Amino acid sequence: MAKIAPPKTAPLITLTTDFGLSDPYVGQVKGVILGLCPGASLVDLSHDIPPQKIDRAGLMVASSYPYFPPGTIHLAVVDPGVGTSRRAILVQAGGQMFIAPDNGLLTRVIKAHPRAKIREIINPEVMNHRISPTFHGRDVFAPVTGRLAAGLAPTEVGPKLLDPVLSAPVLPSLRRGIIRGRVVYADRFGNLVTNVPVALVEKSPGLGPVKVRIGGQELTGLHLTYAEKEAGLPMALVGGLDYLEVAVNQGRADEYFGLGEGAEVEVEL
Amino acid sequence: MAKIAPPKTAPLITLTTDFGLSDPYVGQVKGVILGLCPGASLVDLSHDIPPQKIDRAGLMVASSYPYFPPGTIHLAVVDPGVGTSRRAILVQAGGQMFIAPDNGLLTRVIKAHPRAKIREIINPEVMNHRISPTFHGRDVFAPVTGRLAAGLAPTEVGPKLLDPVLSAPVLPSLRRGIIRGRVVYADRFGNLVTNVPVALVEKSPGLGPVKVRIGGQELTGLHLTYAEKEAGLPMALVGGLDYLEVAVNQGRADEYFGLGEGAEVEVEL
Amino acid sequence: MAKIAPPKTAPLITLTTDFGLSDPYVGQVKGVILGLCPGASLVDLSHDIPPQKIDRAGLMVASSYPYFPPGTIHLAVVDPGVGTSRRAILVQAGGQMFIAPDNGLLTRVIKAHPRAKIREIINPEVMNHRISPTFHGRDVFAPVTGRLAAGLAPTEVGPKLLDPVLSAPVLPSLRRGIIRGRVVYADRFGNLVTNVPVALVEKSPGLGPVKVRIGGQELTGLHLTYAEKEAGLPMALVGGLDYLEVAVNQGRADEYFGLGEGAEVEVEL
Repeated sequence: MAKIAPPKTAPLITLTTDFGLSDPYVGQVKGVILGLCPGASLVDLSHDIPPQKIDRAGLMVASSYPYFPPGTIHLAVVDPGVGTSRRAILVQAGGQMFIAPDNGLLTRVIKAHPRAKIREIINPEVMNHRISPTFHGRDVFAPVTGRLAAGLAPTEVGPKLLDPVLSAPVLPSLRRGIIRGRVVYADRFGNLVTNVPVALVEKSPGLGPVKVRIGGQELTGLHLTYAEKEAGLPMALVGGLDYLEVAVNQGRADEYFGLGEGAEVEVEL
Repeated sequence: MAKIAPPKTAPLITLTTDFGLSDPYVGQVKGVILGLCPGASLVDLSHDIPPQKIDRAGLMVASSYPYFPPGTIHLAVVDPGVGTSRRAILVQAGGQMFIAPDNGLLTRVIKAHPRAKIREIINPEVMNHRISPTFHGRDVFAPVTGRLAAGLAPTEVGPKLLDPVLSAPVLPSLRRGIIRGRVVYADRFGNLVTNVPVALVEKSPGLGPVKVRIGGQELTGLHLTYAEKEAGLPMALVGGLDYLEVAVNQGRADEYFGLGEGAEVEVEL
Repeated sequence: MAKIAPPKTAPLITLTTDFGLSDPYVGQVKGVILGLCPGASLVDLSHDIPPQKIDRAGLMVASSYPYFPPGTIHLAVVDPGVGTSRRAILVQAGGQMFIAPDNGLLTRVIKAHPRAKIREIINPEVMNHRISPTFHGRDVFAPVTGRLAAGLAPTEVGPKLLDPVLSAPVLPSLRRGIIRGRVVYADRFGNLVTNVPVALVEKSPGLGPVKVRIGGQELTGLHLTYAEKEAGLPMALVGGLDYLEVAVNQGRADEYFGLGEGAEVEVEL
């Protein structure tokens, strides 16, 4: 393989999977990466994505990459189609790289960067020699990641790809001043994290405070801290992930509303 | 910003939070740190502190820092007051640095080092430009940590602080040969970890074996290994964290006693 | 201490324990290692081994080390005999090093490498000065690991050992064309991971497809991907760990069969 230039700074790689931390799957992925790029810094975003929840992984990557320096490589593997003919992709966007199955996981990243360069990963030379049909994370995605971190030119992984799979329901809709979105997941604190970027709400031309409707209730205004509401009361919050959250001060919104993934949320601007 | 000298050895940073590992919060904190100090070694102490259990985080930091080399920076964020006016502090003690909210988390470290230097972190230049009111871990504490690891002079973070918040109930009391303490938490093995440092018991001038009273029972002597008691029997143990533990050989002390956090323990020297 | 040569590449160390991630035990182990070998890369295989499940840890190490580069050091501590007279061992095999209690954990590694060099770790100079009787992971195993990673000659840890503890039930038996093995554990996805190496099945001289018997059922053939069976149906699978697995397409085999650790499996070649 040619065209390897040593990285200028210590390579930094994030990992997002549904492999869990109890089994040695994540460790094996890291072994392959570090064998190809010794000394790289590896950061776990989450390995606790519920199996097959592609969109949850996508939101985590999309909300996290802005906090990583230029040159970071983000590897995300939630891959119900492993072993079938689904493609693998490399996305170059905003000075970073993203590697994932071509199953819609990177929809937010691609939509946010109209000038993103996308390649299909097909060069067998950048993969392991032996590929387990059930573990492309270790045998396809990890070796590509390790080689790119070590300086492999992105052009080496495969040809340009013009039709990446994009997930329609990932992004909220905006029509006549109403944003229609949904809950992607409840976080550790019980906050309902939605797919509505806070930037979309903040840029809106509305005059009065926004109204957020969820679970038959209407919440007024977009709050910045929990303490702005009495204990036990719900509120719409600018969450730490920069997506609209519904929270309960000193409580759990998932239990308060009895809602979780997929629940509809409406924002009237 | 001025006064940055490159670190002499590979910077080493520990992290202790109540963020959990399912959400990408810890990963974002690490991204900010590594963006400012590429190549730093990051070690997780625990991210599984129950939300708002400041004292449990404090015990973990206090029992762990002696096992880290000089120059290590310990970042601990359990921060129920995030977004309010609670202060953020940097403590220099014993050749290491400690960064946390000023909410009593570092009480043990400060009490153990009468010559500790404490500063309030107020210089906006050492923080992120945009600060989420609900996520100071990423936007205040992480950038300070990364910059200090990269060589920023501690004097740059803010002025000296003389009145750090100290948590009264954190330390056990010693009066007339009786130490009164309490259980801080039950560990993975069901051992009841107390707030009584083993050194306090060992230095005691008592003649006979100590007596430990908990849950209406009296345990005699301080044991060194589980095997010193029959299977199923409780004992007072010199725990791995160097705090007095109550354990059950081949069993769980939390279930045996039906006790957990906050339970009272008495040691008669 | 003498005979320290600096490592040629960035040292890489894996960790496998039953310490869990909630307590700071793993963090303290890492602190000791990094204090002795600054900048080493540490990779967690699993810290979620159920307490005292030596064989499960052994399978994880044995199935993972082939994915790590030469020179990697694998530290595995599941140690029910801590504080007793059980020995500690260093195994050099296949260009890598393995450090563990001498309790059978490394049986697979030793059996797979007839020319493995085994030493007993007894030199107090390679351990911490103060050794907690309940935490050899931090005070014996971690300092040895850190020093070996920093270039200590293996001969310094102690003399050769010729009679390592080997666990009889760890390996499957092969007699008259029948492999008799058992389930080591169910992974995150509910797959039943057995102790039968896929290589043993693939090298078999049988003519027709293999037959796998488990839980009173007979499964025909060794499948490569889940999708080869209808949803909800069980199959024998070449697992990602390179051991025979029993899986259910889009389901959980542990629940389907009502089986877990220790269940018998038979393969007719």
